[in-house]
Amino acid sequence: MNINGVTIEDTFAEAFEMRATRIVITAMDRNWVAHAAETMTGFATSVIGCGLEAGIEQYLEPEETPDGRPGVAVLLFAVSGKELTKHLQNRIGQSVLTCPTTAVFSGLDGEATPMGEGVRYFGDGYQISKLFGERRFWRVPVMDGEFVCEATTGRVNAVGGGNFLVLGRSAEETLRALEAAIEAMSRAPGIIMPFPGGVVRSGSKVGSKYKALPASTNDAYCPTLRGLTDSNIGPEVGAVMEVVIDGLDPDSVSRAMAMGIQTVCAFGPDNGILGITAGNFGGDLGQFQFSLHEVLA
Amino acid sequence: MNINGVTIEDTFAEAFEMRATRIVITAMDRNWVAHAAETMTGFATSVIGCGLEAGIEQYLEPEETPDGRPGVAVLLFAVSGKELTKHLQNRIGQSVLTCPTTAVFSGLDGEATPMGEGVRYFGDGYQISKLFGERRFWRVPVMDGEFVCEATTGRVNAVGGGNFLVLGRSAEETLRALEAAIEAMSRAPGIIMPFPGGVVRSGSKVGSKYKALPASTNDAYCPTLRGLTDSNIGPEVGAVMEVVIDGLDPDSVSRAMAMGIQTVCAFGPDNGILGITAGNFGGDLGQFQFSLHEVLA
Amino acid sequence: MNINGVTIEDTFAEAFEMRATRIVITAMDRNWVAHAAETMTGFATSVIGCGLEAGIEQYLEPEETPDGRPGVAVLLFAVSGKELTKHLQNRIGQSVLTCPTTAVFSGLDGEATPMGEGVRYFGDGYQISKLFGERRFWRVPVMDGEFVCEATTGRVNAVGGGNFLVLGRSAEETLRALEAAIEAMSRAPGIIMPFPGGVVRSGSKVGSKYKALPASTNDAYCPTLRGLTDSNIGPEVGAVMEVVIDGLDPDSVSRAMAMGIQTVCAFGPDNGILGITAGNFGGDLGQFQFSLHEVLA
Amino acid sequence: MNINGVTIEDTFAEAFEMRATRIVITAMDRNWVAHAAETMTGFATSVIGCGLEAGIEQYLEPEETPDGRPGVAVLLFAVSGKELTKHLQNRIGQSVLTCPTTAVFSGLDGEATPMGEGVRYFGDGYQISKLFGERRFWRVPVMDGEFVCEATTGRVNAVGGGNFLVLGRSAEETLRALEAAIEAMSRAPGIIMPFPGGVVRSGSKVGSKYKALPASTNDAYCPTLRGLTDSNIGPEVGAVMEVVIDGLDPDSVSRAMAMGIQTVCAFGPDNGILGITAGNFGGDLGQFQFSLHEVLA
Repeated sequence: MNINGVTIEDTFAEAFEMRATRIVITAMDRNWVAHAAETMTGFATSVIGCGLEAGIEQYLEPEETPDGRPGVAVLLFAVSGKELTKHLQNRIGQSVLTCPTTAVFSGLDGEATPMGEGVRYFGDGYQISKLFGERRFWRVPVMDGEFVCEATTGRVNAVGGGNFLVLGRSAEETLRALEAAIEAMSRAPGIIMPFPGGVVRSGSKVGSKYKALPASTNDAYCPTLRGLTDSNIGPEVGAVMEVVIDGLDPDSVSRAMAMGIQTVCAFGPDNGILGITAGNFGGDLGQFQFSLHEVLA
Repeated sequence: MNINGVTIEDTFAEAFEMRATRIVITAMDRNWVAHAAETMTGFATSVIGCGLEAGIEQYLEPEETPDGRPGVAVLLFAVSGKELTKHLQNRIGQSVLTCPTTAVFSGLDGEATPMGEGVRYFGDGYQISKLFGERRFWRVPVMDGEFVCEATTGRVNAVGGGNFLVLGRSAEETLRALEAAIEAMSRAPGIIMPFPGGVVRSGSKVGSKYKALPASTNDAYCPTLRGLTDSNIGPEVGAVMEVVIDGLDPDSVSRAMAMGIQTVCAFGPDNGILGITAGNFGGDLGQFQFSLHEVLA
Repeated sequence: MNINGVTIEDTFAEAFEMRATRIVITAMDRNWVAHAAETMTGFATSVIGCGLEAGIEQYLEPEETPDGRPGVAVLLFAVSGKELTKHLQNRIGQSVLTCPTTAVFSGLDGEATPMGEGVRYFGDGYQISKLFGERRFWRVPVMDGEFVCEATTGRVNAVGGGNFLVLGRSAEETLRALEAAIEAMSRAPGIIMPFPGGVVRSGSKVGSKYKALPASTNDAYCPTLRGLTDSNIGPEVGAVMEVVIDGLDPDSVSRAMAMGIQTVCAFGPDNGILGITAGNFGGDLGQFQFSLHEVLA
Repeated sequence: MNINGVTIEDTFAEAFEMRATRIVITAMDRNWVAHAAETMTGFATSVIGCGLEAGIEQYLEPEETPDGRPGVAVLLFAVSGKELTKHLQNRIGQSVLTCPTTAVFSGLDGEATPMGEGVRYFGDGYQISKLFGERRFWRVPVMDGEFVCEATTGRVNAVGGGNFLVLGRSAEETLRALEAAIEAMSRAPGIIMPFPGGVVRSGSKVGSKYKALPASTNDAYCPTLRGLTDSNIGPEVGAVMEVVIDGLDPDSVSRAMAMGIQTVCAFGPDNGILGITAGNFGGDLGQFQFSLHEVLA
């Protein structure tokens, strides 16, 4: 398969079942919404080292939020409901409770997951519970007034680790195309790209020569190791970059992969884009497989 | 004491000794420098919940960095050298190793603290050690080439928790003045403001009616609790905000406090700025005391 | 007079009467509001060369705009009502009519000044007039629907050329302080700073050795000409920068000057801020005089 | 022709010969580079109303600029060399000479076009001429030191008005796809998109029912006029947006058109992208024709 002169390998991305939720953070204005969301979703690139993968799904206009203020939808992914609850509560406590003028709401139906339940004790007994229909909220007194936090959010089974790899002539050319692709994908609903700027350059293989380590550099895709290892890349490839996608469901991941790959391919070989492939472990580890050719069909 | 019509209370900020380091991250261009630094310093508002307090000290022009590329100086603070080492290595692994085109260097002399020592094993034996003078670097093969990471960085005894509080007429007016103050303070060397946007509205007191909790809302500064508690704020105060400052040394903290308070006071009572005070625990807990009147002298 | 170790010269800023209006631009979201406003207020640093001085006063939340969408308040200044009308209409035609999803409203009471009256003919007869109370709007069919533009806006007599000069040790230190000051001043209502980034470094004197030119470089404040001309600056001064302020009334200008000077002075001599002065022509040309000492009282 | 479910009409974009130059602006840091470039290229959407079409081609790293500082390449287009000279000199005088720490250089070989020749007289006789090889520079004393401006720049025959139109289901969906496309195209060399945010929604036809006006709304593409005029768009089309591209040569325009159209099509009908067409006047007015099917071949 070939798009705009770029070869699409006949392979698949292997992805994993995770637990996920969406929360909505609002604040006085767009800047303070961003401060809270960026702090809260920082250092959340991989469940391995951070316990959580998180990112901004999209900013919301006031008419799209529960309290009519500017807001943001944040998606959070973890390996289990218990892990999700733990990290969600800690991050709300550190990054949202602390942030001037913010409030937090559930943004997803699903299995009830404690959210404001943990933060409320910060109120030292002065907190107040409020019921709107079936939704319970905590109002916790703070120095700028009250922090409103919904008691629970909903969680669903979701997809972690959708991905594609871009084979490029140079790091610079590959990143130019990927910056545009990330921009396009960031407009797709239901997904996040948890790595810095949406791109990861330290792809890994399972296992290592060091016994204690479960994973190590994916030498088959390292340009500097082409002569030393069983390489998957030709001499014209100077850089490989991966986009990892977490999504609320397989369709969202699939759509985002298509949009990202199409955008990268819009740059073509003249702009240093040589091929597209995907990362998998032979298909035995993950619950989901995304065939590149099917995704792009 | 009074600046531009704003009362400066005769009190002091109480701060704590911490361990800190500065690292320098470089990348292909300013955007990718920012992606790495923002991800790495996210969710690092307080050592209590995050293990680390971290932030961007300043962006660096190419002529100011070891490899002549655009860069950023990041400051990281923890309660001990051991904690600092643990979180530094984990965050480099999750947020810098992963980020396209980045390299990491020590930015501070001081007690040697492992940095690249942990990340290097990701290279699966293909990593290469390189010595420039007395500085050792690891070159770890990755998909976009090599990740260069200095083996160690230096750590020093530093100051955590310098602070001042702004008493304002409304949250909006208080934040307008503080946005300008944060902008001014962000230009001061040797310090970071670890909370979202540099401001925290959930000030806390020691202790709680819930036995398990070591701290709870600072009810004496909560406007909604004025009638219910022994309040420190008058009826004209609608919002209180705190700026927390971590610095490499007391002088840096003191200078930044002065700059921030002066800038807030530039807005004056007409723009809703009513008073300045500071947070302390009576002076028995922290190793440092910053008298507001001395800082502003 | 002295603030935080910085000498405030006993002089005054001389300013001029101009005609001004405020318009409100709204759009689908904050990004498109910004695209329109930044394009419309670009190249509007000085009436001499651009015919217009214009800038963003502040961004507006949806509840602050006539159509409940995100918006921006833009201020425009010209030497006469006729000039103001001409440039306002041309800039709306080039930068707002063209910009996806925008609408434009009057943001000021005052003498009626044609606004949508010019643009409406673009509708080729398909435009529709609509009256809400006493306000008339034109609805002009365009490719994304309709461009709504209020027929007239209000103009008032206003102040152009309020200013202060910062004497600094180096360009870099002076700009650091001024960046913070511009951030603080940009939160003040009723004013704009029309030069790039709010600062001008090419201060001018009246007259030139070239007969055709009405103005030329202000050699008395040029550090490189200290030995060649009758200089106003000492050997410790490495850079002088000016902030020019246009405001809807003298009080707005005066308040903004105070806020800017106070913020610059917060940096102090240790950060390279040595003195504050102001630009005037002896007091015979302009209708307004702003004494620095009175402004800061 | 069809890309990802989006119909590409078999038509062509008609474009015009213009005169163009590239200049390079440098400054102390990226922020001040941006202030100068954004001010200088503001209000330059169309030669009809602004005399000039201008935009940022790309930001430059220090190693890519003549003086080793951060910079930006700006492209400027006008209908004749005389017009280009006039507007170039005026804009440099208003937006670059004024902007702290900037310098300006020629960025293109071609017919010599006066640039610093006009600005130098501001120096009031204190300006100094300097020759590097065959390039002459003016050093003009200003308050922050010296403004360095190359005496001339080069101009070439270029292309104005390359374009494509996107037929979308709604304004919001069409803009989401176009925001990504503009991001992709902004990475292409040799071109600018002069309209706000790169997009124009007020497409025009030649002529008007008002005799004095040479152009008026392109009613055939206005969704609200579908029943009243000889419409080119079906009932499923809720918004039409145009991207206009000026380029240094036809190849640059063609490549950018392909990249933009491919990126828009990556969104597909599910995301509201229904068709692509282009604007022309039958082929009799412009010197260039860009067939959509050839551009995308």
